[in-house]
Amino acid sequence: MTSSDKPDPAEDTPDTPAAPTGIAALDWTAASAEPQYRAAVVDLLGALAYGELAAFERLAEDAKLAPTLADKAELAKMASAEFHHFERLRDRLAEIGEEPTAAMEPFVAAYEGFHKQTAPSGWLEGLVKAYVGDSIASDFYREVAVRLDSDTRALMLTVLDDTGHGGFAVEKVRSAIDADPRLGGRLALWARRLMGEALSQSQRVVADRDALSTMLVGGVADGFDLAEVGRMFSRITEAHTKRMAALGLAA
Amino acid sequence: MTSSDKPDPAEDTPDTPAAPTGIAALDWTAASAEPQYRAAVVDLLGALAYGELAAFERLAEDAKLAPTLADKAELAKMASAEFHHFERLRDRLAEIGEEPTAAMEPFVAAYEGFHKQTAPSGWLEGLVKAYVGDSIASDFYREVAVRLDSDTRALMLTVLDDTGHGGFAVEKVRSAIDADPRLGGRLALWARRLMGEALSQSQRVVADRDALSTMLVGGVADGFDLAEVGRMFSRITEAHTKRMAALGLAA
Repeated sequence: MTSSDKPDPAEDTPDTPAAPTGIAALDWTAASAEPQYRAAVVDLLGALAYGELAAFERLAEDAKLAPTLADKAELAKMASAEFHHFERLRDRLAEIGEEPTAAMEPFVAAYEGFHKQTAPSGWLEGLVKAYVGDSIASDFYREVAVRLDSDTRALMLTVLDDTGHGGFAVEKVRSAIDADPRLGGRLALWARRLMGEALSQSQRVVADRDALSTMLVGGVADGFDLAEVGRMFSRITEAHTKRMAALGLAA
Repeated sequence: MTSSDKPDPAEDTPDTPAAPTGIAALDWTAASAEPQYRAAVVDLLGALAYGELAAFERLAEDAKLAPTLADKAELAKMASAEFHHFERLRDRLAEIGEEPTAAMEPFVAAYEGFHKQTAPSGWLEGLVKAYVGDSIASDFYREVAVRLDSDTRALMLTVLDDTGHGGFAVEKVRSAIDADPRLGGRLALWARRLMGEALSQSQRVVADRDALSTMLVGGVADGFDLAEVGRMFSRITEAHTKRMAALGLAA
């Protein structure tokens, strides 16, 4: 069984997986028998859960910058959607016998660092940040998800469902740039800073978390070696560039 | 039909209402034929909707002050519940052909004034504020709801359902006071300031909104004369006093 929905020549391996590449064909009960795999998934769920909670806070904060009540309500809606994602991840951690707070704690500093370094100075910067941040995070978790056991994968794909940021942010930012083209350059710089800061915090997390990085660089999950990590980062960066172009920004 | 669930000697009026006292027996279609009643309900829905959106923002803000991740998640949950109440009220305004933003705008200044005057200086002040503010608002809207048409009443009672603030705030504040009894005096002062500010902003709203105040002082709704408004404020103040005692505070 191959769960990837992207055509990738590197993946046309036969359907009879060797031990480490077979995790995507297993469910959680079978896959989590391997302690290191289990620890890596707990890390992923914890990181994603805290990310959702931090996104809730960030969007609620940005709602204050909204120029109209309708815009404020739109941001509040996104924040609330992130909170419900958080609930599902937290409940899942509890379900597999992990203390959710303990699973999230290791990632607090990285998210706080990211948000501290990238506090938006206004409504449009906030929108670009919501859009860029969620898109990058979503791309990353989707890439990882296809290599996880079927239960964890299903949960991740559910919580990564679009919360409506994309369309709303693109529409608002594009019309602002249409009205004042000079905004484009400033926001493009901002988007680059966001991407740089996200990468730097991710590196910090990977360096700190053994189980997670071992999984990422090919220890226990399905076909994830160092070269593949490189390709994954290329795909995420390319997707970012395309999104910025769609937004009217040169990335 | 009497919808009040409180025994009140002043309310043992016969079951055959005169024209203005009959609104509680009508549904929205019948009741809203009276333009002034309609305008008053639009005001109430608008005020309540913006109140929920402001509560969302306030709770999301307070979540940042939470001492633990679990407390933060609890506040975020409450904020999200308020947002869903907001959605229902906004959708109802749209359903009866009103522009939700226009219905909310007249109340923005009062809520902003209230929140500006009562920015909590810490986690416990935030919890007390969430608890006091929601309780007073909930008491007020429940008092008004029993005098409204059946459709509006049902909606209001639904959105005023406890969002879990009560138990959580009481537990946290009581245990903080147990640990440091001097906190009691400071938080009691804070609760008094909240009540005073809430009353002063309410008066401002009532003074500004003709249809609403006419309804409150007995024009169009069921049995709501000036004396009754006085009794209503007494009941709300008494309930506040009891809640503060339950919290370990002298009100």
